[in-house]
Amino acid sequence: MDLTTIENPSFLKNKTNGELEVLSEEIRKFLIQQLSETGGHIAPNLGVVELTIALHKVFDSPKDKFLWDVGHQSYVHKILTGRAKEFTTLRQFKGLCGFPKRNESEHDVWETGHSSTSLSAAMGMAIARDIKKTGEYIIPIIGDGALTGGMALEAMNHIGHEQKDVIVILNDNEMSIAPNVGALHSILGRLRTTGKYRWAKGELEGVIKKIPGIGDKLSSTSKKLKDSLKYLVTQGMFFEEMGFTYFGPVDGHNFEDLFESLEYAKKTKGPVLVHVLTKKGKGYKPAESDDIGTWHGTGPYKVESGKLIKPDKAPPAWSKLVSDTVLKLALKDERIVAITPAMPVGSKLENFQAQLPGRIFDVGIAEQHAATVAAGLATQGMKPFLAIYSTFLQRAYDQVLHDICRQNLNVFIGIDRAGLVGADGETHQGVFDIAFLRHIPNLVLMMPKDENEGQHMVNTAIQYEDGPIALRFPRGNGIGVPMDEQLKEIPIGSWEVLREGSDAVILTFGTTIKMALDAADELEKENISVKVVNARFIKPMDTAMLNDIFKDGKPILTIEEAVLQGGFGSAVLEFASSNNYQNVRVERIGIPDLFVEHGDVDKLLDEIHLTKDESVKKIREMVCNK
Amino acid sequence: MDLTTIENPSFLKNKTNGELEVLSEEIRKFLIQQLSETGGHIAPNLGVVELTIALHKVFDSPKDKFLWDVGHQSYVHKILTGRAKEFTTLRQFKGLCGFPKRNESEHDVWETGHSSTSLSAAMGMAIARDIKKTGEYIIPIIGDGALTGGMALEAMNHIGHEQKDVIVILNDNEMSIAPNVGALHSILGRLRTTGKYRWAKGELEGVIKKIPGIGDKLSSTSKKLKDSLKYLVTQGMFFEEMGFTYFGPVDGHNFEDLFESLEYAKKTKGPVLVHVLTKKGKGYKPAESDDIGTWHGTGPYKVESGKLIKPDKAPPAWSKLVSDTVLKLALKDERIVAITPAMPVGSKLENFQAQLPGRIFDVGIAEQHAATVAAGLATQGMKPFLAIYSTFLQRAYDQVLHDICRQNLNVFIGIDRAGLVGADGETHQGVFDIAFLRHIPNLVLMMPKDENEGQHMVNTAIQYEDGPIALRFPRGNGIGVPMDEQLKEIPIGSWEVLREGSDAVILTFGTTIKMALDAADELEKENISVKVVNARFIKPMDTAMLNDIFKDGKPILTIEEAVLQGGFGSAVLEFASSNNYQNVRVERIGIPDLFVEHGDVDKLLDEIHLTKDESVKKIREMVCNK
Repeated sequence: MDLTTIENPSFLKNKTNGELEVLSEEIRKFLIQQLSETGGHIAPNLGVVELTIALHKVFDSPKDKFLWDVGHQSYVHKILTGRAKEFTTLRQFKGLCGFPKRNESEHDVWETGHSSTSLSAAMGMAIARDIKKTGEYIIPIIGDGALTGGMALEAMNHIGHEQKDVIVILNDNEMSIAPNVGALHSILGRLRTTGKYRWAKGELEGVIKKIPGIGDKLSSTSKKLKDSLKYLVTQGMFFEEMGFTYFGPVDGHNFEDLFESLEYAKKTKGPVLVHVLTKKGKGYKPAESDDIGTWHGTGPYKVESGKLIKPDKAPPAWSKLVSDTVLKLALKDERIVAITPAMPVGSKLENFQAQLPGRIFDVGIAEQHAATVAAGLATQGMKPFLAIYSTFLQRAYDQVLHDICRQNLNVFIGIDRAGLVGADGETHQGVFDIAFLRHIPNLVLMMPKDENEGQHMVNTAIQYEDGPIALRFPRGNGIGVPMDEQLKEIPIGSWEVLREGSDAVILTFGTTIKMALDAADELEKENISVKVVNARFIKPMDTAMLNDIFKDGKPILTIEEAVLQGGFGSAVLEFASSNNYQNVRVERIGIPDLFVEHGDVDKLLDEIHLTKDESVKKIREMVCNK
Repeated sequence: MDLTTIENPSFLKNKTNGELEVLSEEIRKFLIQQLSETGGHIAPNLGVVELTIALHKVFDSPKDKFLWDVGHQSYVHKILTGRAKEFTTLRQFKGLCGFPKRNESEHDVWETGHSSTSLSAAMGMAIARDIKKTGEYIIPIIGDGALTGGMALEAMNHIGHEQKDVIVILNDNEMSIAPNVGALHSILGRLRTTGKYRWAKGELEGVIKKIPGIGDKLSSTSKKLKDSLKYLVTQGMFFEEMGFTYFGPVDGHNFEDLFESLEYAKKTKGPVLVHVLTKKGKGYKPAESDDIGTWHGTGPYKVESGKLIKPDKAPPAWSKLVSDTVLKLALKDERIVAITPAMPVGSKLENFQAQLPGRIFDVGIAEQHAATVAAGLATQGMKPFLAIYSTFLQRAYDQVLHDICRQNLNVFIGIDRAGLVGADGETHQGVFDIAFLRHIPNLVLMMPKDENEGQHMVNTAIQYEDGPIALRFPRGNGIGVPMDEQLKEIPIGSWEVLREGSDAVILTFGTTIKMALDAADELEKENISVKVVNARFIKPMDTAMLNDIFKDGKPILTIEEAVLQGGFGSAVLEFASSNNYQNVRVERIGIPDLFVEHGDVDKLLDEIHLTKDESVKKIREMVCNK
């Protein structure tokens, strides 16, 4: 069928399993073709084709509520709810979002991006349902990786206790983004291999009945033995212990199996966990045979060969530069230990893993734990490198504050994907870290102008012994500068003048330096001479240079690819106020007070007026109106 | 013995159990007496007297490392490590801290305050130990309540997976701060009542051997049966599933039992969990018979009667005012549901619990889950009231940002204990919330000048339909103003002039309003006339009034009992910069860039120069030097 003609999932109700299998193939073909052009989370979606179809056949969305944890596996759901025709715009500016979005469809009842939120939200919806007595089904769909996130476990503990009717679909693909870790993973592994509940139950009940006298002789023991058998026959004892009825494992690519389990789940009172086994990348060879996560999310690719279409020029990726520099130092410095919360591939820690396997720990999707493991290491004189994306560091705010910074521990936080990230959109923009870190005492926060300065900053962070230090760096690649052989240390709190000028000053750092230099070039044509400063230490700032600049009295523009409220520009205003420089004009540009959606970063920057043109305009105004 | 003569725990090594029992009584007597004068966490410490003695006898601190989760149960540890003589200064300014503190003793290896961090820190220390091959024991001591915190579960998952040698002492007192909730609590309850592992194992192995032919006939089933029996005999199957060897339950007030289990634990490879049952408040009748948490932490009390010594005058406590006003509205508005992360008593939700038991949910120590449950409720048209302390809201930063504010959901966040909290000290000061909330789009943030405005703000928050709204209020009691009968709505973003003046303006809110008015009174004597504004909306600010004030051009002082970096004063500077008012002098006072320790709030305010005198001085300088 033509998938773009689907308006809502009601057409599924009368389809046979055979017809649904044909539909599954059509959806796979559509996804493989469409995503080869736009890029996107191909493997997770290929894995849930049958599961999503089955859910939409058995339940009635939007009355019944699907909550897609993490959300990057919601493409099939989007197709079945009338959005196939919009896939040409997937993850593009003003186009279809790569995650559930409430303003896109009434079938998207919960927005995700960060992991492990769906069970808590489902609990909230279940409480509302029971107060309002509306009786709908509430179905969070969560991956085995996301289940290790602390808040998902908090939610299971609460849902199990309250015995709310919630049907949790555990989408177990044996790999979330990277190969999975953790004791929970082992539990799932045992469940996978021990066969099915229904089979075991029948056989074992027979066996027990045949054991003579076991009930009479040992009253308290037999009770225990019975409990024990309950755990045996209902194999998901971890989940049963948590108060859930466990169904599974279910073949997530077999409609008969799926329908049977989902119908069972519908009839069961209290919380249910349906353990569904799926194959990530199912139906597309290159993605199916991927075992490290390359096909988790990709840019455009060639369908036939499975080759990713990459830009020709490729200066070193920031993540790789940082991780490889840490590795280089770690080979000589045994104090260095790397910690990643489920992002060994994204953070480009493969080389570290290969060369120092005993000194790197993937803790799973568990940012809070990751930060405090690092703190624990630092108390023992180690130098932990916590590799974490800006947006996910939000999860560890309290741990950074209460455990790392309050104890003033020597933790090196590598903040990856700082700034706008583009296609992933508003749940993933790394634009809050300056505002949520700058007010924490003891923390040094820096951002390099290019990859060469970046490697020196890594070295600076590793050599720094006076407390926590964080290096933020952007998504994507460096700019192609020559790299020094010898690593240097950059004095903490030192800025650098990149261009002299006498009429105005731009203070900026990282990705927006080019914008500043370009603006200065353009203003030069108007005979406005602009000094450009690489304000590479966001905290502490270079107060000596700031004093000189403010004493000079020329107007100042701050530029940052981060939120303006409480950001770097505010730090400059605070400095001016505290030092009584209120007569100097300061303007700030950065991210305004709104959530920035998905799309090409340049388009997003245009949209929010974080541009060279805006910089030129601001400076021109200040210089001419002073 | 005279406890103040103890210098370190080595004296315990040769003591008999009988002598240790005498010591236990002496420590209890000491604690009951000392805390009656200073106040403190009496019940948790009375519960761990024998446990702490046993730990210090079996292990060798500081080589072996004790990590006291939450940390308010570390008093006995402090006594045994040479700090008894300092108990007269407990929780007082420059005195002994109520939590572990690394600069107090080499025996305090990990600082706590917020819960559930000890397992992650222990994992970090274990990694360090194994790299350095130092071989010490690492022993986190965690309560049953703290175990429900997501990061503790993240840590168990990781420790279980890595099979690191960590000895977790689960201090199960059946009640953390409030009566415990959650499925984990039920699991612990079952373990408590099913008797001991060693007994069950012996009996059951005999039984199994007597079952004829079970091994031969059913190969795969018998394997399962054996596994099942393993789970049966090792009763802590939840923990066993997580990869831990379980010992318990152990009588936490019986030295013989404690020593036996701890010695077993020492000899066991891999992670161990020792499940110790203790009685909170043990040995002091008023605390023993407390079942709602009154004796968890107290002020001074009379030893004989167990009566708390309270100040005579008692205007309504802020927590009670807010919770009771929410209840009043909830009785008429079925959308209102209260959520508390383990603080029903602290947040004074007892009346709500009594009158609307189906509309209040204590989710356990699980702030992340609490925030997202509230978000889930709001998606369904409910009006959740999330009652949470400022310091603990730090744990839910990402959930507030990503789940509540990004989706612009109608959640009412009641931020309790905002500002300095006094005796609990630096882990509990509620001074970061403005800085970590102000940059989040869509959120309204307000603070009332007194309890009457407070009740109107509660009403305002409940009636507000345009997104998330937060009300911050201080620890302690209101100021005793008359209360209106009728609840009003306060226009969002509206400030109020409390006192007119023509030479300078003070912008402030909440607890510091009195300071501002007193400063204005004092300045009046010098013929400096100061306008004082109740800037009750921290976000959005009253931009109309701000424009008038800045156009008027008089110097401005902002005062806030919160961190200066990124705080309210910075918001005023940002406004000035964005609106080109840079010629107006603005000064800010607030919490400087450091962690504020414990002590009487007035002394702390003096220490950091957040005082009337400083306000007077700043205004005088600005007015006279302009």
